[in-house]
Amino acid sequence: MNPDPNQTGLFLVGVRGAIGTTVLHGIEGLRSGMPPIGMVTAGPEFADLDWADYERFSVRGWDVAGDAHRAADDLARTGVLPPDLVELSGGLRDRLEMSIAPGVPEPEDRQLVDRRSADRLDLSPVEMVEALRGDIREWMSELRTRKAVVVYLASAERSRDLPEAWMDPEADPIKLLMTAPMDISRSILYALAAIEEEVPFVNFTPAPGATVPAVAGHARRKNVSVLGNDGKTGETLLKTSLAPMFRDRRLHVMSWEGFNMLGNKDGAALEDPDRKATKVANKDAVLPAILKESPNMHVGVRIDFVPSLHDWKTAMDYIHFQGFLGAKMSLQFTWQGSDSALAAPLVLDLTRLALMAQSRGEGGPLHAAAAFFKQPLEVEEHDFHRQMELLRKWLRPAT
Amino acid sequence: MNPDPNQTGLFLVGVRGAIGTTVLHGIEGLRSGMPPIGMVTAGPEFADLDWADYERFSVRGWDVAGDAHRAADDLARTGVLPPDLVELSGGLRDRLEMSIAPGVPEPEDRQLVDRRSADRLDLSPVEMVEALRGDIREWMSELRTRKAVVVYLASAERSRDLPEAWMDPEADPIKLLMTAPMDISRSILYALAAIEEEVPFVNFTPAPGATVPAVAGHARRKNVSVLGNDGKTGETLLKTSLAPMFRDRRLHVMSWEGFNMLGNKDGAALEDPDRKATKVANKDAVLPAILKESPNMHVGVRIDFVPSLHDWKTAMDYIHFQGFLGAKMSLQFTWQGSDSALAAPLVLDLTRLALMAQSRGEGGPLHAAAAFFKQPLEVEEHDFHRQMELLRKWLRPAT
Amino acid sequence: MNPDPNQTGLFLVGVRGAIGTTVLHGIEGLRSGMPPIGMVTAGPEFADLDWADYERFSVRGWDVAGDAHRAADDLARTGVLPPDLVELSGGLRDRLEMSIAPGVPEPEDRQLVDRRSADRLDLSPVEMVEALRGDIREWMSELRTRKAVVVYLASAERSRDLPEAWMDPEADPIKLLMTAPMDISRSILYALAAIEEEVPFVNFTPAPGATVPAVAGHARRKNVSVLGNDGKTGETLLKTSLAPMFRDRRLHVMSWEGFNMLGNKDGAALEDPDRKATKVANKDAVLPAILKESPNMHVGVRIDFVPSLHDWKTAMDYIHFQGFLGAKMSLQFTWQGSDSALAAPLVLDLTRLALMAQSRGEGGPLHAAAAFFKQPLEVEEHDFHRQMELLRKWLRPAT
Amino acid sequence: MNPDPNQTGLFLVGVRGAIGTTVLHGIEGLRSGMPPIGMVTAGPEFADLDWADYERFSVRGWDVAGDAHRAADDLARTGVLPPDLVELSGGLRDRLEMSIAPGVPEPEDRQLVDRRSADRLDLSPVEMVEALRGDIREWMSELRTRKAVVVYLASAERSRDLPEAWMDPEADPIKLLMTAPMDISRSILYALAAIEEEVPFVNFTPAPGATVPAVAGHARRKNVSVLGNDGKTGETLLKTSLAPMFRDRRLHVMSWEGFNMLGNKDGAALEDPDRKATKVANKDAVLPAILKESPNMHVGVRIDFVPSLHDWKTAMDYIHFQGFLGAKMSLQFTWQGSDSALAAPLVLDLTRLALMAQSRGEGGPLHAAAAFFKQPLEVEEHDFHRQMELLRKWLRPAT
Repeated sequence: MNPDPNQTGLFLVGVRGAIGTTVLHGIEGLRSGMPPIGMVTAGPEFADLDWADYERFSVRGWDVAGDAHRAADDLARTGVLPPDLVELSGGLRDRLEMSIAPGVPEPEDRQLVDRRSADRLDLSPVEMVEALRGDIREWMSELRTRKAVVVYLASAERSRDLPEAWMDPEADPIKLLMTAPMDISRSILYALAAIEEEVPFVNFTPAPGATVPAVAGHARRKNVSVLGNDGKTGETLLKTSLAPMFRDRRLHVMSWEGFNMLGNKDGAALEDPDRKATKVANKDAVLPAILKESPNMHVGVRIDFVPSLHDWKTAMDYIHFQGFLGAKMSLQFTWQGSDSALAAPLVLDLTRLALMAQSRGEGGPLHAAAAFFKQPLEVEEHDFHRQMELLRKWLRPAT
Repeated sequence: MNPDPNQTGLFLVGVRGAIGTTVLHGIEGLRSGMPPIGMVTAGPEFADLDWADYERFSVRGWDVAGDAHRAADDLARTGVLPPDLVELSGGLRDRLEMSIAPGVPEPEDRQLVDRRSADRLDLSPVEMVEALRGDIREWMSELRTRKAVVVYLASAERSRDLPEAWMDPEADPIKLLMTAPMDISRSILYALAAIEEEVPFVNFTPAPGATVPAVAGHARRKNVSVLGNDGKTGETLLKTSLAPMFRDRRLHVMSWEGFNMLGNKDGAALEDPDRKATKVANKDAVLPAILKESPNMHVGVRIDFVPSLHDWKTAMDYIHFQGFLGAKMSLQFTWQGSDSALAAPLVLDLTRLALMAQSRGEGGPLHAAAAFFKQPLEVEEHDFHRQMELLRKWLRPAT
Repeated sequence: MNPDPNQTGLFLVGVRGAIGTTVLHGIEGLRSGMPPIGMVTAGPEFADLDWADYERFSVRGWDVAGDAHRAADDLARTGVLPPDLVELSGGLRDRLEMSIAPGVPEPEDRQLVDRRSADRLDLSPVEMVEALRGDIREWMSELRTRKAVVVYLASAERSRDLPEAWMDPEADPIKLLMTAPMDISRSILYALAAIEEEVPFVNFTPAPGATVPAVAGHARRKNVSVLGNDGKTGETLLKTSLAPMFRDRRLHVMSWEGFNMLGNKDGAALEDPDRKATKVANKDAVLPAILKESPNMHVGVRIDFVPSLHDWKTAMDYIHFQGFLGAKMSLQFTWQGSDSALAAPLVLDLTRLALMAQSRGEGGPLHAAAAFFKQPLEVEEHDFHRQMELLRKWLRPAT
Repeated sequence: MNPDPNQTGLFLVGVRGAIGTTVLHGIEGLRSGMPPIGMVTAGPEFADLDWADYERFSVRGWDVAGDAHRAADDLARTGVLPPDLVELSGGLRDRLEMSIAPGVPEPEDRQLVDRRSADRLDLSPVEMVEALRGDIREWMSELRTRKAVVVYLASAERSRDLPEAWMDPEADPIKLLMTAPMDISRSILYALAAIEEEVPFVNFTPAPGATVPAVAGHARRKNVSVLGNDGKTGETLLKTSLAPMFRDRRLHVMSWEGFNMLGNKDGAALEDPDRKATKVANKDAVLPAILKESPNMHVGVRIDFVPSLHDWKTAMDYIHFQGFLGAKMSLQFTWQGSDSALAAPLVLDLTRLALMAQSRGEGGPLHAAAAFFKQPLEVEEHDFHRQMELLRKWLRPAT
């Protein structure tokens, strides 16, 4: 059969998670006429550009456990997904369940995952990548498409040391894989599977994946676009929107203390100090990068698991700053947002951007996507407004 | 005697007010080595430009009542001015007091002002402008300078109707003055006096002044720079820094409710609904201008006089917005800042910018100063970050 | 047929409103096993007392417009009522609709109400009371009960002058009614109809009703209990819980500024300054009553209609206070609560308290219910904790 | 010389700390006519009782380092002490400096303390108590008084294990001291020295002191009153004032997350996890004690050192609760208070209460002082309002 040029495969790692479930239902909602609120690329400003049609995105993916129906019900009860949309999408979830491939779990989680995923733990890293590539090929053939994107949405991994050789952008990661430790970060495996299949890869949750120099270099050489790292959806988005004002008005920030609370599976994962470290580091780096003239600034970043909040990420920040003649002033804010409803439209945006980069033949880390990430690949700029200008310039290079 | 090319006259309308007093002491503090926190033009980014030296700014000005010593003591007690700086600056205030010229009060306030200012109420508008011009000439000669700027810092005026003819940018305001109503806005008189003396004029507090088309046109024809209107120091600064994020992420702002509390003389003046109207209108306009895609947005702006706060302006804002699939989220912030400590460094910045425009021969409204104002003259852009880019481009036209 | 001694009639004025709808569904939820969260009388502390069984409460009532199904759907969409409970209760709402009696609207609203209610505007005040009494008798007979309570839940009325004679507790309101103005407060008519039928009356929303001395006196003479005025559900509850701490620690409150936002029908009604006045007055009075040692306290009470909030009442309060040696400190709070979910369980509590008072033979204003009201009838005490002690003492007089 | 019956010795452990300095200046301020804001015992309610005259309190005390002048200057700069009061009190501080006795430091701090205090580290615990008793006797004789109170204000100690025998209220602590570890908690030493001298002891900062059963039992047998533990001045005060409202309204608290920031010496000490543990434990216990019907409540307590805040303790709390039918609501508050200005007046109150207990012959832990402490000695009640009723009943036993 001939490929369908308008069809796009959206292959999600952690497809039954809250973000994956919101993406799945969101596409259905958009098809039925709901407005694309929260999608950067869907506004009038960029309406004339040649975007992939999100109504033709087909979701497939991997997961190690769970049940798509229950995930959807939870999100409806919590006020993230409209109950009627969840009801209407039962068949869609049934079809999704039938196509889900087993994921590659971390070895520590063998007892927590489903049988099929546990089986993949018996493979070597090289074999794991082969298995993931097989999944991608199968979905692309099923969907009769040549366009697809892999988006990494799994919960924060445990932090692990990576052999030094992976830090070399010239190294061949496929070779390195042969001697890689059995517990190598799963995000690297998914990234390599995608790149080998010439499918763009998006690092949406904090994970090494395409941030590893050998992987990024490989993507560049294979001319496959990679985007990341760690979606900027809540407190960090606000920080990088507000800090430029303090910089430009030359107000001296003495302390910026952020307290984050969340109650979903990601939050539970972050109870593990090992996994929290990466997330906190990503959040920690943005302020000093923007506020270079506030050198002794005290930056506090706390993340606490508060189960009653479910998907509702709540951040309370306290900013203590000095103005003229040393007068001490303060700004506090409280942000209450649905983690999944903030992330899902960005997943659709990033899919479109990845496909645009791919169609322009721009492989390797896509710098223009910096505005979407806490730790943008190869970009030093954290000022959200300047990152948006980067995006605008890339989208309209003529200007 | 020869003029001193480094000397600059800073002529403040309402010189004994909280902002004027903070400017006076601030210059003294900077001379004694305090860092210029909060001054936009004093950072490393613009260090190579040919700025007027703020240590050579000499403050003069008009006022209708008050006592510079008491104003300074109040600000020290409130934690705005460092007590030791106030103590050290006693002689400076004595000298200032000797040079203060009577102001031109509103007719309604005849009983509330000092004798010399009340006397000016017996003059016609034309004579009032003559008297103010005389003050300017006298100070410039005393200071042996040809460089000066008039900054309007008086409390919000009562709103008054202006004859239609003033709306014509081609009209000659000096002629219009001959038939002007006796209670014509005092800000217009000060603006015209400055323009006639070829001294730039800055509208820092909400007042018609140079916003009147006939006045702005006159400034342009006379090649005198005018800057304004209504300094952006607190809640509006935050609004115009944050709203671009909502716009760029295409989050739908349903309601943005702002509650402002302040306790100084400006706050007391705003108890009068007549004076409050202008201020609220300026604050009201910025959000719809930035958030064009949130058309049914409910914008609430409240300003309340809360005496115990004195100079500490406190704003509590509640922002209710929708994300993907209509999920409702919120952001709240509380801003606690010293009104005077936020405004004073901007007065110094605007003085420098006015002088730079003047030296470049750019008369009329200075668009590049938009980032400093709630209602920037002839500029539609309210996005603070884009306004800063306007400034950067003007400062370095080569780029 | 014999009366059923366990059956209780709960007759609501404004039965299709948000609170009425929540009461109706709440009883159904409780019957199906949901825990009685938010009901003061349902805890272990008072479990041994002889309470009316809320599972046997039958809702009837008056309304001037609307549709019970739509009201329920709105509350489900807003996250107040569980969607499955709304779905299950369709038949209950059908039955309610069939029993609803026309209300007595204010004359100004003749065009806004349904036909049957408009017809009641043609009656004289005396005839109106007769009609309402007829409704009560009909429902009681239908329900085969002798126990019933009328709860006034209508939106804030327009404030109106009442002839001086009504201020006399000894006056007979039934006689006064004969010469009463045609637009006499509807709450008085409902109160009198209830009292004449020997059914207790609860003033839950701000309205004269049983607060009028002639009405209260009549209730006392007829030995019918009346409870009110103006349910204490949100910001005022917090104020009266927190202010005692400032009093007891002798911290000097300089300013207590409260900003209330709400988006439901009550909020829309309060856009009318005439109706807002009563509500604000009730909220205004509590702090000076508790904080007698902070005599110059500035109390600000704002209520704004913010449609996007629907039923979610949001209050932001700023408390500025002085401690030892005059040090200035602050407390801010933000309260986000569902107006209806906070009010509905109190309606059930008050019904139980009214019936208990009635069974004890205690007519007239029930002082022990003070903790439930912003303006408790004949009680000066506003300290919530002391009001709770009043309740405890009344419930266990032995102690 | 004859003793002066009105003179009271106020002997502070950590006399040069922020609280000690505020107490010293506060007494001076009260003498000069400043109102006793923040003093519980100084209001009209208790005006008729036979209180010790705070204008006759003379401060003496121990410290291991520091300089009273610098402490006062810091507090003036931070806005806690009025600058003119600090200036006027120079002589007072000079006299204090001359009378200060060396403290007993923890062994780990030998290098951080002054020479005289380091010398005390060479003593055995028994000798340390002797030395402290000597100090007390000397001050009492110098002041010609028989009335004195020792108040423990030192920063949080490191937590240490105490031999089991000290847990026995019947044990004689003086005997136990002979075999006590060299690093025994210093608070125990001060408590025993006070008790042996028949001087009441107040545990104001978190420390074992009089909370140790053997010490408390000894105080009871010697008929010396002891008060504590851990002054309730900020976030915990608010928690115990607000939680009763949630309890009485039967709202189900799901999560109560508290983030505390402070920047003074106490804050720096709490950077040490060892010292933080006790403080957090005291703060942690109050909510479960009050909210017994919210059994699965998640309670978070964070304390962070934020240097820029100095003495200004800032707490941001997020309370997530359920109402009727499970509706989820929230309350947030931000408290910004001066730690020292909140604590100092309570030190004066507790001194008066300790003397009143002593004069009534009531030795051992004073239950009536529960309202002043996070962890009240031998009292289970944490509800602030009920604790205040305990105090009122004790003060007027007749009622």
